[in-house]
Amino acid sequence: MREQFEVRDSDAGGRIGELTVPRAGVTVETPALMPVVNPNIVTIEPSRMADEFGAEIIITNSYIIKTTDGLEADAREQGLHDLLDFDGAIVTDSGSFQLAEYGEIDTNTEDILQFQHEIGSDIGTPVDIPTPPDVSHERAESELRTTQERLELAETIDVGDMLVNAPVQGSTHVDLREEAGAHAAATDLDVFPVGAVVPLLNDYRYDEMVDVVAASKRGLSRDCPVHLFGAGHPMMFALAVAMGCDLFDSAAYALYARDGRYLTVDGTEHVEELDYMPCSCPVCVDETPASLRAMDDRDREEALAAHNLHVTFAEMRTIKQAIRDGDLMELVERRARAHPAMLDGYRALTDHAAQLEETDPASKGSFFYLSNESAARPEVVRHHERLDRLSPSGEVLLTEGDHSSDYDESWPVVPPFGPFPKALRNTYPLTAEMPSRLDRDAYEAAASGVARLADVNSDTSFTLAHEDWPESALALVPESVTVENLWRGER
Amino acid sequence: MREQFEVRDSDAGGRIGELTVPRAGVTVETPALMPVVNPNIVTIEPSRMADEFGAEIIITNSYIIKTTDGLEADAREQGLHDLLDFDGAIVTDSGSFQLAEYGEIDTNTEDILQFQHEIGSDIGTPVDIPTPPDVSHERAESELRTTQERLELAETIDVGDMLVNAPVQGSTHVDLREEAGAHAAATDLDVFPVGAVVPLLNDYRYDEMVDVVAASKRGLSRDCPVHLFGAGHPMMFALAVAMGCDLFDSAAYALYARDGRYLTVDGTEHVEELDYMPCSCPVCVDETPASLRAMDDRDREEALAAHNLHVTFAEMRTIKQAIRDGDLMELVERRARAHPAMLDGYRALTDHAAQLEETDPASKGSFFYLSNESAARPEVVRHHERLDRLSPSGEVLLTEGDHSSDYDESWPVVPPFGPFPKALRNTYPLTAEMPSRLDRDAYEAAASGVARLADVNSDTSFTLAHEDWPESALALVPESVTVENLWRGER
Ligand SMILES: [Mg+2]
Ligand SMILES: [Mg+2]
Ligand SMILES: [Zn+2]
Ligand SMILES: [Zn+2]
Repeated sequence: MREQFEVRDSDAGGRIGELTVPRAGVTVETPALMPVVNPNIVTIEPSRMADEFGAEIIITNSYIIKTTDGLEADAREQGLHDLLDFDGAIVTDSGSFQLAEYGEIDTNTEDILQFQHEIGSDIGTPVDIPTPPDVSHERAESELRTTQERLELAETIDVGDMLVNAPVQGSTHVDLREEAGAHAAATDLDVFPVGAVVPLLNDYRYDEMVDVVAASKRGLSRDCPVHLFGAGHPMMFALAVAMGCDLFDSAAYALYARDGRYLTVDGTEHVEELDYMPCSCPVCVDETPASLRAMDDRDREEALAAHNLHVTFAEMRTIKQAIRDGDLMELVERRARAHPAMLDGYRALTDHAAQLEETDPASKGSFFYLSNESAARPEVVRHHERLDRLSPSGEVLLTEGDHSSDYDESWPVVPPFGPFPKALRNTYPLTAEMPSRLDRDAYEAAASGVARLADVNSDTSFTLAHEDWPESALALVPESVTVENLWRGER
Repeated sequence: MREQFEVRDSDAGGRIGELTVPRAGVTVETPALMPVVNPNIVTIEPSRMADEFGAEIIITNSYIIKTTDGLEADAREQGLHDLLDFDGAIVTDSGSFQLAEYGEIDTNTEDILQFQHEIGSDIGTPVDIPTPPDVSHERAESELRTTQERLELAETIDVGDMLVNAPVQGSTHVDLREEAGAHAAATDLDVFPVGAVVPLLNDYRYDEMVDVVAASKRGLSRDCPVHLFGAGHPMMFALAVAMGCDLFDSAAYALYARDGRYLTVDGTEHVEELDYMPCSCPVCVDETPASLRAMDDRDREEALAAHNLHVTFAEMRTIKQAIRDGDLMELVERRARAHPAMLDGYRALTDHAAQLEETDPASKGSFFYLSNESAARPEVVRHHERLDRLSPSGEVLLTEGDHSSDYDESWPVVPPFGPFPKALRNTYPLTAEMPSRLDRDAYEAAASGVARLADVNSDTSFTLAHEDWPESALALVPESVTVENLWRGER
């Protein structure tokens, strides 16, 4: 067990955790946002991030510090915390990004970890190889071997109580991502960035991002805090948290602000195109689009950066509240409507419902059915798995209507779950709140439940009494089940 | 034409309008939120609503003022604007609510309109009969006749340049709602509250609320500003605006605050159950759940009311920005995931797609396909209607793949729209952003488009070349169309 990370609460694949960072003497609550601080261009002072936005952890780039005249000396002399004026945890990246961008860098794992340790970093990073998407399996595997050697080297370097990142690579090859996760988890390193997803995010390939995270998580163990490296748009935090990511870094708050862009949980607006401030943050309450446009560039950049940070931190709080409420999947449903690619991401998440089910609590407040995708939630998968272990016998009525003493047993049937013993009626998720206008996916999921129960109980005689299910659902009910339509109304 | 209301911009059934309120000497931009001010219990001062929240219009109850000792005299003496210390537009309700609650009131239309005029109300209200849902058609019709007589009476009363509300009643009988709308629009009254929807909202019958609004709107004309009376939860504003509502009143901000409840665009939280502040407003940036709970009751109530107002006004700004961006339906998609009943409301909205299509702009930024419901949006309905007027001839290829010179014409096919002439390729909505993981509803809508085109062009020979459409979609393609699957990949 990794002592420095403790999971306090969970919902789907998401969790609230505590990351103890011994060198900083702080405990960071996850999911956490780490604002990226570029030591050369500070838009919002780190001390203000702590005081005004509640930042507990930030991230900066040790390679930039090391290779910038003056900064290196200052960092060595004052230490990173004084240099940046930040008392919380400071993560340092290694230059891997620069390696990926420029092909070579003037450092190596031993050297940069040593430097990070010397300047007082709390979580350091070796020089891994961020293999881009879509490369050959051969190249991805070969580069992953190099990354793995670097992690093994990092284990041997004495960095005191500085924590060390163990990046998980493997390009878009999910077998390699899973293997990389398992290898990284087996080291004694501490924090697990899923690397090189930025190209996927830039191309709106959220479904593939989900598959890559799912694969990495299958390899990693539950005590591994996972950082989705380079994912800074608040639109996708809920989705990524539901997949099991714990740490995010945002350079977006500042880069977008420099460009006049305004983040929301549903996308990005440009300040030139705003007629209203679609936000309740202190900046948006005080300013108007006209007043922002009238500011000088520096003030506008700072105002936009502050708005972007407010939105981003508020989304983290919203996600944590959702995990406490057992509503994280409902939040993912909402955020999935930000963009068609986010819908792809959510639809991809449902492919991994069985994986998420493993950490999903057995009981929560209530299940809200909010879209066709709700029919594929982890709770539905779990209920169907449970049906395999139930053995009603004799003549059994599965019914949406009244129970009947003409049968040996009467079981309720509720879309999207399907049948269940009466005794479970008031248990999660069977107390789900459903729309009155149900979709085919809900009925079909219920029919699959009926089929699953009938398949494992071939000696039992089942009758399904349904309220006018669509043909596509009835087609999933095995021939052996007698089917009756209870509906007496008009179509 | 009603001169005092001008529509500036529209999206689906929603619009940005300007309501000129002559007596107040102000123009109110709609959609607008009217905070309800209870003159006996002021939680947030009206002057603060204007300065801090941007309120342009508020609503109070003239019957309470008239029947409260002291208040009546003060109102007559100082006038309503000084009494409440508010320079914007003030709407006064009449006591109809009290009539519905207590069975009788001590005023009548003539009397209360006169009183409203005397105290300086900007928009007054006659005493209509708020018939509840689910009553017999006979009762609803009979009560509607009384309401209509009151409106006709109100027309005859000299109230100077005070505007007058013409409430639209009719219970859940949509024929009566439509007739009531037409009758009200034919009076020379000014603002049109859709009345007695509160019981529907309280019971989460959002789909029926949508049907009632749709019917009322069919009767009303486009120059009628519509007030959804009693709808104050920000969760449903986008849906109601998309249906064509322009004005909302919120007592919720204060009533919920008194009760420790915290509004969000996705529902309601209780402050006792908050572990985090899931919001970016100034209150939520400054406070924590613990600090709120530690406040004395009065301070907490005020803080919660301020949060509730911030969220509510920010949602109005978000809606107006969405109308400007042509993204209102995308916003409705998001808000529909607040609650299963909101999904019902959105699914009900799609039943009225043809009605919303009438005011939907022909061109917007881009169509985002965000759920199965997107396949039923007004733009899809419009495209299908357009197909009825197109006449390709000879041998026509409708294809998701390459065009072919073996045919007289080749037309692209794009789910959920279906086929269209090449020349339309770069026009809205055919430039839609689609998820890569399409659902059956998208394919079936496209297939319906193919069927529609084939039906009106029975002499043309069509070939549909599709990328592995599901069976349920192919079943909608007429026998006369030759079907080819372009898909050569693996399943
Ligand atoms: Mg819940
Ligand atoms: Mg758009
Ligand atoms: Zn803001
Ligand atoms: Zn707030």
